[in-house]
Amino acid sequence: MTGRESGGGAWELLAPAAAAPVRGRGRALREALRDAVRSGRLPAGTRLPSTRDLAAELGVSRGLVTEAYEQLTAEGYLVSARGSGTWVGDAVRAAAPGRVRDLAPRRSAAVRVDFTPGLPDLSLFPRAAWAAAYKAALGGLAHRQLGYPDARGLPELRTAVAQLLTRRRGVVADPERLVVCSGVAQALTLVGSALRERGERSVGVEDPGSPEHGRLFAAAGLRAVGLPLDGEGLAAGPLAASGVRAVVTTPAHQFPSGIGYSAARRAQLLEWARSVDGWIVEDDYDGDFRYDREPVGALQGLDPERVVYTGSVSKSLAPGLRLGWLLVPEALAGAVAERKRTMDLGHPVLEQAVMADFMARGGYDRHLRRCRAAYRERRDALVAAVTAAFPGTEVSGIAAGLHVIARVPARYGAAAVFTARAAAAGVAVRTLADYGSAAGPEDGGVSLVLGYAHLSPGDITRGVAALAQSVGPAGAGTGR
Amino acid sequence: MTGRESGGGAWELLAPAAAAPVRGRGRALREALRDAVRSGRLPAGTRLPSTRDLAAELGVSRGLVTEAYEQLTAEGYLVSARGSGTWVGDAVRAAAPGRVRDLAPRRSAAVRVDFTPGLPDLSLFPRAAWAAAYKAALGGLAHRQLGYPDARGLPELRTAVAQLLTRRRGVVADPERLVVCSGVAQALTLVGSALRERGERSVGVEDPGSPEHGRLFAAAGLRAVGLPLDGEGLAAGPLAASGVRAVVTTPAHQFPSGIGYSAARRAQLLEWARSVDGWIVEDDYDGDFRYDREPVGALQGLDPERVVYTGSVSKSLAPGLRLGWLLVPEALAGAVAERKRTMDLGHPVLEQAVMADFMARGGYDRHLRRCRAAYRERRDALVAAVTAAFPGTEVSGIAAGLHVIARVPARYGAAAVFTARAAAAGVAVRTLADYGSAAGPEDGGVSLVLGYAHLSPGDITRGVAALAQSVGPAGAGTGR
Repeated sequence: MTGRESGGGAWELLAPAAAAPVRGRGRALREALRDAVRSGRLPAGTRLPSTRDLAAELGVSRGLVTEAYEQLTAEGYLVSARGSGTWVGDAVRAAAPGRVRDLAPRRSAAVRVDFTPGLPDLSLFPRAAWAAAYKAALGGLAHRQLGYPDARGLPELRTAVAQLLTRRRGVVADPERLVVCSGVAQALTLVGSALRERGERSVGVEDPGSPEHGRLFAAAGLRAVGLPLDGEGLAAGPLAASGVRAVVTTPAHQFPSGIGYSAARRAQLLEWARSVDGWIVEDDYDGDFRYDREPVGALQGLDPERVVYTGSVSKSLAPGLRLGWLLVPEALAGAVAERKRTMDLGHPVLEQAVMADFMARGGYDRHLRRCRAAYRERRDALVAAVTAAFPGTEVSGIAAGLHVIARVPARYGAAAVFTARAAAAGVAVRTLADYGSAAGPEDGGVSLVLGYAHLSPGDITRGVAALAQSVGPAGAGTGR
Repeated sequence: MTGRESGGGAWELLAPAAAAPVRGRGRALREALRDAVRSGRLPAGTRLPSTRDLAAELGVSRGLVTEAYEQLTAEGYLVSARGSGTWVGDAVRAAAPGRVRDLAPRRSAAVRVDFTPGLPDLSLFPRAAWAAAYKAALGGLAHRQLGYPDARGLPELRTAVAQLLTRRRGVVADPERLVVCSGVAQALTLVGSALRERGERSVGVEDPGSPEHGRLFAAAGLRAVGLPLDGEGLAAGPLAASGVRAVVTTPAHQFPSGIGYSAARRAQLLEWARSVDGWIVEDDYDGDFRYDREPVGALQGLDPERVVYTGSVSKSLAPGLRLGWLLVPEALAGAVAERKRTMDLGHPVLEQAVMADFMARGGYDRHLRRCRAAYRERRDALVAAVTAAFPGTEVSGIAAGLHVIARVPARYGAAAVFTARAAAAGVAVRTLADYGSAAGPEDGGVSLVLGYAHLSPGDITRGVAALAQSVGPAGAGTGR
C-alpha cells in the first residue's frame, strides 16, 4: 500500500508493445511489462496505474491490460490486493550476465596442418546411405517405439552390434549384456560408477595413455593410478604392486604408443585380474582399423566375466553421433544398466534405429572397408614422407589405428624446441610426453604422435615438408 | 609340453568351416577354432596337430591353418613354442549365461484402457516434418560439425530453445546458460551432481510427487526428503523446517495433484531459497500445455540465479527422442557443463541439428498447437464421462497438462478395491496414494490420477464406462 507512484510518462516503455499488430498485442504487452520489472525499470513497490488509466494512455482495450496484470500477478511479478490496486512485487531478481565458456576443443586457425590424433576423416561420413537408413528407420518404427526406450538400447541395435562385434572383434557378445551408450566416455563413466558402487576407490590407467581415461574415472569418484608400459603392453610388475583391482587398457593398438599387446601379456593380464578378483576395461577405440592383416581379436573374448569391452563409432563414423557400446560381465550388468537409466533413460531411439538399419543393410561394413582403404593410403604417405624427410627416424604402431609413432633422432632438436618450431610453421604435433610421464627416447630424440586419418595424402606430404623445414635441414639440426 | 593329444577324430569339429566358400574359409576356420576353445570342446593343454597334418586332414591349404594358428596365438587362445608345436592356452574362461533383464516398463496386454499418466499421443509425432528437418539438417551440417560437439549443445539449438522458452515460458534464457541434455532425467542427475559437489547431501521433493525425482537424486548421492503440499503448492512450514537447501518442484501443474502454484507461494518459495542460500529446481514437465488461457510463466523468470529450470520434448514430441534442456544459474553452470561432458561429451549432433531446424521453421509451434487442440478435446471428453458416470465426483487440475485428478466419492469403494476391480475389467488406473504418502480425500473416497493425452476420445469414453461398470452401478457401490 506504500508503493511509489510511477509518473504517467514512465509507461511510454509499454508504447511499442501497444502498437504491435492486434494478434500479438496481448503477448507483447505482457512481455514488455515482465521485462520492465526484470530489468529494474519498474522497481519493486512501483504502483501500476489502474487498468482503465493504462488502457487509455496506451490506446488499447482495457481487457488486454487486465489480462496482462492477471497473468503477471499469477506468475509472481506483480502483487494485487482487492480494491487497492496492483504493485510490482519484490520477488524478482535479475540474472547475472552470462559468460561465454567454450568447452569444445578448437583447432586454431593459424594451424595449417594438424597431426593431433583423435579424429577420423569426417568428409567420408556416408551422408546418402545414412539419410536412406534414417528414412527407413523412421518409417519402420511403431508409434509405441517413440515412447520411453529400454535404457540398455533398442533390441534391434543390440543384436546388430553383438553380431558385428562377434564377427569383427572376436568378442563374446550376448545382446543381453550389451548396453548402447553415448560413446566410450559414457561407457567409462558407467563402469566407473559400477566399480565405485562395488567398493573400488582407484583404477589403473596406462601411462602414456589417453588423458580422458583418468579424467572420466575421476568424475566417477575413482582415483586414477598411472601404470607404465613396456614393449608388450602394461608392465606386469607395477600393475601387481599398484594395489588397484581394475585397469583400463587399449590392447589392440595402445594409445598413444601404438603397440599391440603381446599374447603373453594378454594372458598375464587375465591371470592378474583373476588373482585379485578384479576387472580389465578394454577400450577398443580404433579396433576397426588394421591394415596389413586380420585384426587381432579383442581381449574380452578370452574372459567375458573379467573384461569389460567398450567401443564406439567415433573413429569409424563420426564422434558427433555420440554412439557407442559396452559389453559387461554378469556381475556388473545390473549396476551398469541401472546407472544408464538414471543418467539418461537410454540413447535416443531414432538414432539407434538408424544405426541398426545401417548395419543390417551392410552399410557399416562397406563404410569401414572404404575408410580402411583411404586410411591405409594416408598411413603409407605419412610413413614415406617422414622417413624421407627425417632420415634415421623409426616409425612404429603402423599396423593399425589412425596414428603412428615417429621417433625422430636427437639432432632435430629436443621435444619442446621441435614442437614450438613446428607450431610457428603452422604444423601442430604432439609428442609421447604430452600423454603421460614417459621419458623421451634414450637417444634424446623426440617421439612424435602423428594422426593421419583426418588428413588428405596431400596435406600429409605438405605437413611433413613444413615440419622438416621448420626444424632445419635434415642432418643439420641444432641437436640437444 | 605335457599337453594332451587330441585324437584325429576330434578335428571333425572344424570340418564345416573347412567346407565354407573359399572367400570366407580363413575366417570360418578361425572362428570355429576360437569357439571350440571357448566352449571347452578343446580344453586347456590340448595339443594341436601340426599345420601340415591339420591342413591335410581338413583338405585346406597349409597357409590357411598357419594363419589361423598365428591369429589365435596373438589373441591368447593358443600358445606356441618354437619347435614344440601349439597348445590350447589356459587364458580362456567361458561367459556366464546371459539373463534377460527387462528394464523398460511394459503395459500389460490384458489392459484395454490404461489411464496411467506420462505419455503423449505418440501417433501425433510429426514424422513427415521431422524427416524433412532431418534432410535439411544433414545437408546443412559442415563436415567438422560431425566431430566432437560442444558438450553444452549445438549453438543453433541452444539459441532456438532459448528463444522458445523466453517466448512461451517467460524464462530468462541466455543460450550460454542453456545445456541441451537427454531429457529431465539427465537434467536432474546433472543438477544433483553439481549440488553434491557443493556440499549438499539432501534435496526436498514434492509428496505426492514424481517418484523419479527422488530416485534420480538418490543416484547422484543426495537423500530425498518428501515434503507435503497444501492447496497452493509445497507447504512453506515443513519446507523451512526440513533443513534442505534445494527442492525440486512442478509449479506450472504439480505432478500428480494438478494444482498450479499460487503467486503467493511462488514468492514464498523464492524468499525461502534466498534465506537459506539455496536452490529451486523447476521441472516444467508439461508446461507446454495449458488449455483455457495463456500459460503461467515459469518460476525461473523471477530469479534465474536461484531457480534451475528444466524441460524436455518427452511430453510434447516423444520420450524416445531423449531431448531436453536445462537452464542453470551462473553458480552451477560450470559444474553442470563439466558433468555433462564426463557423462557423454554432449548430445548427438544430428538430432540437435534436426530439432534446431524443426524449431526454426515453426514446426515445433505448429505441432504444439495441434497437440493442444487434440488434448483439450480429450480432456473435455474425460471430464464429461467421469462426472456423468460417477455423480458427485470433483475433477481438478484440468487447466493444464496431460492428466487430471478425479475425487470419486466413498460409495464407489476404497482405493484398493476400486483399482483392483478396474484392473479386472481391463482398465488401469492410479490413485494419488500411488505417488506418495498422502492420505485419500477426507470423505474416504478415491483420488484418481487420470492421464488422457495418449488416449482417443473413444478410448476415454469406453474406459470410463468400463470403470463405472466394474465398480458397480452408480450410487449403489459397496463403499461405506
